[in-house]
Amino acid sequence: MPPPFETITSRGNPLLRQLRHTAARGGVTARGSALAESPHLLKEALHSGIEIERVFASERAYAGVAATIPPHRRIPLHRVADKLFAEASSTSSPQGVLALVRLPASDPETVFSGLALVLDGVQDPGNAGAIARSAEAFGASGVVFLKGSAAPTNPKTLRASAGSLFRLPFLAGVDADQFLEVADGRGKRMFAATAHGGKSLLDADLGEDGTVIIGSETHGIAAKLLDKATPLAIPTESVESLNAAAAAAVILYEHARRKLRP
Amino acid sequence: MPPPFETITSRGNPLLRQLRHTAARGGVTARGSALAESPHLLKEALHSGIEIERVFASERAYAGVAATIPPHRRIPLHRVADKLFAEASSTSSPQGVLALVRLPASDPETVFSGLALVLDGVQDPGNAGAIARSAEAFGASGVVFLKGSAAPTNPKTLRASAGSLFRLPFLAGVDADQFLEVADGRGKRMFAATAHGGKSLLDADLGEDGTVIIGSETHGIAAKLLDKATPLAIPTESVESLNAAAAAAVILYEHARRKLRP
Repeated sequence: MPPPFETITSRGNPLLRQLRHTAARGGVTARGSALAESPHLLKEALHSGIEIERVFASERAYAGVAATIPPHRRIPLHRVADKLFAEASSTSSPQGVLALVRLPASDPETVFSGLALVLDGVQDPGNAGAIARSAEAFGASGVVFLKGSAAPTNPKTLRASAGSLFRLPFLAGVDADQFLEVADGRGKRMFAATAHGGKSLLDADLGEDGTVIIGSETHGIAAKLLDKATPLAIPTESVESLNAAAAAAVILYEHARRKLRP
Repeated sequence: MPPPFETITSRGNPLLRQLRHTAARGGVTARGSALAESPHLLKEALHSGIEIERVFASERAYAGVAATIPPHRRIPLHRVADKLFAEASSTSSPQGVLALVRLPASDPETVFSGLALVLDGVQDPGNAGAIARSAEAFGASGVVFLKGSAAPTNPKTLRASAGSLFRLPFLAGVDADQFLEVADGRGKRMFAATAHGGKSLLDADLGEDGTVIIGSETHGIAAKLLDKATPLAIPTESVESLNAAAAAAVILYEHARRKLRP
């Protein structure tokens, strides 16, 4: 049985107001919760066991959403008039579900325990999320979102991660100096993905717990990071560089492939 | 010297009207030209030698754009009042350049002469464009955009391809039956990228001129195509599937890698 909430029909409803403030803050509530905006993400969040603060469903989607949430989880579910729901959603084609979720916090120890990807200025949330998704798929230990990259809590990053950010250890809002301090202290192999030049991915030994920095397509990788890292090039046949998420997927795949076929 | 056009300041200007109609038609003019909407794409188009019908620049960007276009190319360049330019652009943050370009036509012979990727229901233009970009980078012979996939002429596909669609042979608007007829007639190895099950990419022999079908993330690959293809799985450590563009990049990389390190 879904909880017996009334349908929210007033734009001034305090919960809806909070939701609009959250959207205006880039998708993060004052408590640090993030907006997961699709039935798929809700299912992944439920399955991952992360904390789900509350869920909003449009009138049209309500029955389906209510059936998805196991009653014993006691997650507050609010029904919202369709028009108000569409206004509160950050997407142009809302799918009728909006869950406030707490992304799990992680620590450097865990994130750097295996191959870790470090995003430097990857501003496109679709790319940032797809990188997290590939990182989970290929068994990376974690992802670091340096300041200036799309935030993991950005609803578009979350959507593109397809739920991987509910499970993959990550660090966010770290600045380059903090990252270097942690990485240097661990004596880790550090690579910087580069479009041209540098060590070929075919010859590079990423090691068991290396880090690979993926840079912005327009601005590349910050000089202070490049100074400490070995340039790493994916061998390509043309002058064309790769999309950041494609480059990350290839590096992660190559690392996983060598474990499977040493 | 830039051609001595007056600044377009009227919303009713016939060229601007044509531009608005083009945006409403998904970015294709009645003649089949496409909208390339960034300084980077204009440079790539100029460098690729494809036909550029005309270029529009905002007042603010005009001087820079004029300096980019070699006078001997005799490409009409129109200066548009900043406000009107922003209205005509399909992007939310227009960069002041809009070029009408003719994407080069190709033929099945060329597209299928090596490894070809076939997009079935890849609706996200960012993914479709990134796949074309990876295809060029890893030396694929071409890409087929089946009906139901994002069009190569979609301005967002073009942007995500970063200019690769000016050079990479492709076929668009092909239906599944037409594709099967051509591919069957050539006795080609046909693979269908799948999230789980199927032949591992590590063991599959893509051959010198195989085709790999990349499906929609929500609906997978059409049954009539699956019937004729060998399922091909990228080995991943988790249950999570990959983003379509990430999967394509990994398959293309693996194919290129084996040529470099047989």
